[in-house]
Amino acid sequence: MGTALLTDRYELTMVQAALTDGTADRRCVFEVFTRRLPSWRRYGVLAGTGRVLEALRSFRFEPEELEWLGRERVVDDRTLEFLAGYRFTGQVTGYAEGETFFPSSPVMVVEGTFAEAVLLETLVLSVLNHDSAVASAASRMTSAAVDRPCLEMGSRRAHEEAAVAAARAAAVAGFVGTSNLEAGRRYGLRTIGTAAHAFTLLHDDEESAFAAQVAVAGPRTTLLVDTYDVARGVERAVRIAGTGLGAVRLDSGDLGVQAVEVRKQLDSLGATGTRITVTSDLDEYAIASLAAFPVDSYGVGTKLVTGSGAPTCGMVYKLVAREGTSGELEPVAKAATSKTSVGGRKTAARQLDENGRAVAEVVVGGPDALVASWRPTTDDLRPLHVPLVTDGVVDDRWTGAAGVGAAAERHTASREELPRGARRLSTGEVALPTTTLTLD
Amino acid sequence: MGTALLTDRYELTMVQAALTDGTADRRCVFEVFTRRLPSWRRYGVLAGTGRVLEALRSFRFEPEELEWLGRERVVDDRTLEFLAGYRFTGQVTGYAEGETFFPSSPVMVVEGTFAEAVLLETLVLSVLNHDSAVASAASRMTSAAVDRPCLEMGSRRAHEEAAVAAARAAAVAGFVGTSNLEAGRRYGLRTIGTAAHAFTLLHDDEESAFAAQVAVAGPRTTLLVDTYDVARGVERAVRIAGTGLGAVRLDSGDLGVQAVEVRKQLDSLGATGTRITVTSDLDEYAIASLAAFPVDSYGVGTKLVTGSGAPTCGMVYKLVAREGTSGELEPVAKAATSKTSVGGRKTAARQLDENGRAVAEVVVGGPDALVASWRPTTDDLRPLHVPLVTDGVVDDRWTGAAGVGAAAERHTASREELPRGARRLSTGEVALPTTTLTLD
Repeated sequence: MGTALLTDRYELTMVQAALTDGTADRRCVFEVFTRRLPSWRRYGVLAGTGRVLEALRSFRFEPEELEWLGRERVVDDRTLEFLAGYRFTGQVTGYAEGETFFPSSPVMVVEGTFAEAVLLETLVLSVLNHDSAVASAASRMTSAAVDRPCLEMGSRRAHEEAAVAAARAAAVAGFVGTSNLEAGRRYGLRTIGTAAHAFTLLHDDEESAFAAQVAVAGPRTTLLVDTYDVARGVERAVRIAGTGLGAVRLDSGDLGVQAVEVRKQLDSLGATGTRITVTSDLDEYAIASLAAFPVDSYGVGTKLVTGSGAPTCGMVYKLVAREGTSGELEPVAKAATSKTSVGGRKTAARQLDENGRAVAEVVVGGPDALVASWRPTTDDLRPLHVPLVTDGVVDDRWTGAAGVGAAAERHTASREELPRGARRLSTGEVALPTTTLTLD
Repeated sequence: MGTALLTDRYELTMVQAALTDGTADRRCVFEVFTRRLPSWRRYGVLAGTGRVLEALRSFRFEPEELEWLGRERVVDDRTLEFLAGYRFTGQVTGYAEGETFFPSSPVMVVEGTFAEAVLLETLVLSVLNHDSAVASAASRMTSAAVDRPCLEMGSRRAHEEAAVAAARAAAVAGFVGTSNLEAGRRYGLRTIGTAAHAFTLLHDDEESAFAAQVAVAGPRTTLLVDTYDVARGVERAVRIAGTGLGAVRLDSGDLGVQAVEVRKQLDSLGATGTRITVTSDLDEYAIASLAAFPVDSYGVGTKLVTGSGAPTCGMVYKLVAREGTSGELEPVAKAATSKTSVGGRKTAARQLDENGRAVAEVVVGGPDALVASWRPTTDDLRPLHVPLVTDGVVDDRWTGAAGVGAAAERHTASREELPRGARRLSTGEVALPTTTLTLD
């Protein structure tokens, strides 16, 4: 299926009106940014860039879609013809996926004719708003977990395709496994999972369920021990799998207290190498509160895939410059009442101190040609924009499994570079102030 | 693409273990229900049933998926063979889509062998949890809007495929239009939308933007008047489109106050039939607060597609009965610590008073055969379960555009039947108490 109809009707009606009055070919620059972060977030994490690029490759109006648009009279014949031949031929630059961002950070810049660039608005925002919301939550979780692995298990609490994207976004922010099979197949992620309570309940007793699982998965498997009574479950698990049992999973009750008891019991049974994994409505705060307890890994579901209080990112796609009658790119911006934005193309850099620690987000503006070609001339500025699409051709480094791997590396490095306070979970100021640099 | 891999790995590993120890063929009953509603919700709205049925039809393991599962050693060859031939042959009953529900309502019941039924867990929950979260929020919005139309415009704040499902769920709960083109095409929904601020900014001035739009869309279009100055925008809009202008849209600022001013201005210009539509971070509370202002329709985005504070529904898919060694279905339930559930197959009815007003949610349990064949014998009980899948065959009445239409009708009737207090937006008790009826 193509991705072109995953868009708002007004993109198409605007194209029709612009084709009619001759403005459709005006060169335009659109910028993606967010006006604010949730009050409890010190930084955002950009995710979805690779998916935007993959979707751009499939952004074609297929014959049956055109037929439907014509039948519904969404647009006229001339516009249908334009859509039938649509290929994005412009430029996309932006923050590398996995990079941290702040209010006003120009995380993506799309340049092309009005008609070709405006059509991408909804799809670009859908992907970036969803994936960045999940990655921003995920980063706080992996941060709170310190060196204990986090595993993504939220598919059932998200739309079935959003679940795949959520697993991918979690991987960008440091999760090391997902329960979602399609995410494993599509993006080369490690998949995890052994059994649910239903498997125990299917059997006549817990022993036969454990025995069946160990028979096929081996003693290194993870046994779910809280279907009936945790202490008896642990005892049976070790009896059946042996002291080489891989792990036990706790999915209910007071996880910290139970983990202490289960650890003691496992050790007393000689299963000193058996790990304890916990699941059950975890979020970053619950993970942080479990830091002092003998837990070996965290399985996170609902709160991860719903962005832990912020299920979308509030990113917008704004026209910031367009070709005027002179043929030059001119800055434009909405003026009325609220929701104003700053006109003109922007790029950005992260300012670092002598230790390589980030001290500011520098948004660079000024005359279009200067901004478009700007590179820092001093070592204290790390440029943030990378080319993503050049003359319509997607840069493959950012797509597929390789793109997810690169994004995860970028995120680790970017988060590491932030001031220490960035990892605080409490409500407070964003980790970096945004400054502006105006070229002239 | 098939939908079978939109699932959690542990469903497949459980099937493998059950195939190995001979329990895979045990007849099982799984129940979908939620333990609680968000504190501010008086009722939930079931949505997604039609999409579950559509996904069930495509629930096939395709050759390349099987190849990946084998290569990754997710399951063994015998299980791959089982998956290759997988077809759901069981029964699904449940609440009709659009029906209101309460904690413990058995909104869907899946009966089949363990192997065939357990595989559906993740996909069923993904669809119902997402779609019902959106519909439950949407119903409060259409309720608060009373007879003013609500339009769905949230695609950009949701995963691109979730956006399509959200538009559909909004329609189930009474929204009369969506900006999402694919939702229009897939489910026969009315699509809406005219122009964004970018279209005005593309032009040299607001006049030429309005003129271009009116030239192609006619004077009955909706003009966005808040790019520069609302009063001047309204004046220009009427000057260019004439007093027959369809509508003006306000997307920023204090919407209520502006609506009063704009209404006065429109009337003074003779555009007494021109409507005012408002958009900009609306939720059910904002809609209610605008009731006294001259607003004609509401465009709702972010808060709708994110479930207005509850982006997922917390529905679970629990094994409640399974064939024992006797060959009879026996109730089963998890016992440890928290998250307990009630074993055994359940059905449900809504108890009505003499005026046809709902007074209770009646959950019916007891011996399996009695529950499976139960029908109310008194007029005060409206049965809630309808057949959805019979011997593996999907009932087409609930799928496609027809299914959405039927669900919207069901929702209207079901909401109308609830006690008056059900429409209150404030935090409080659920609208109906749940009672149990045990057959014997």
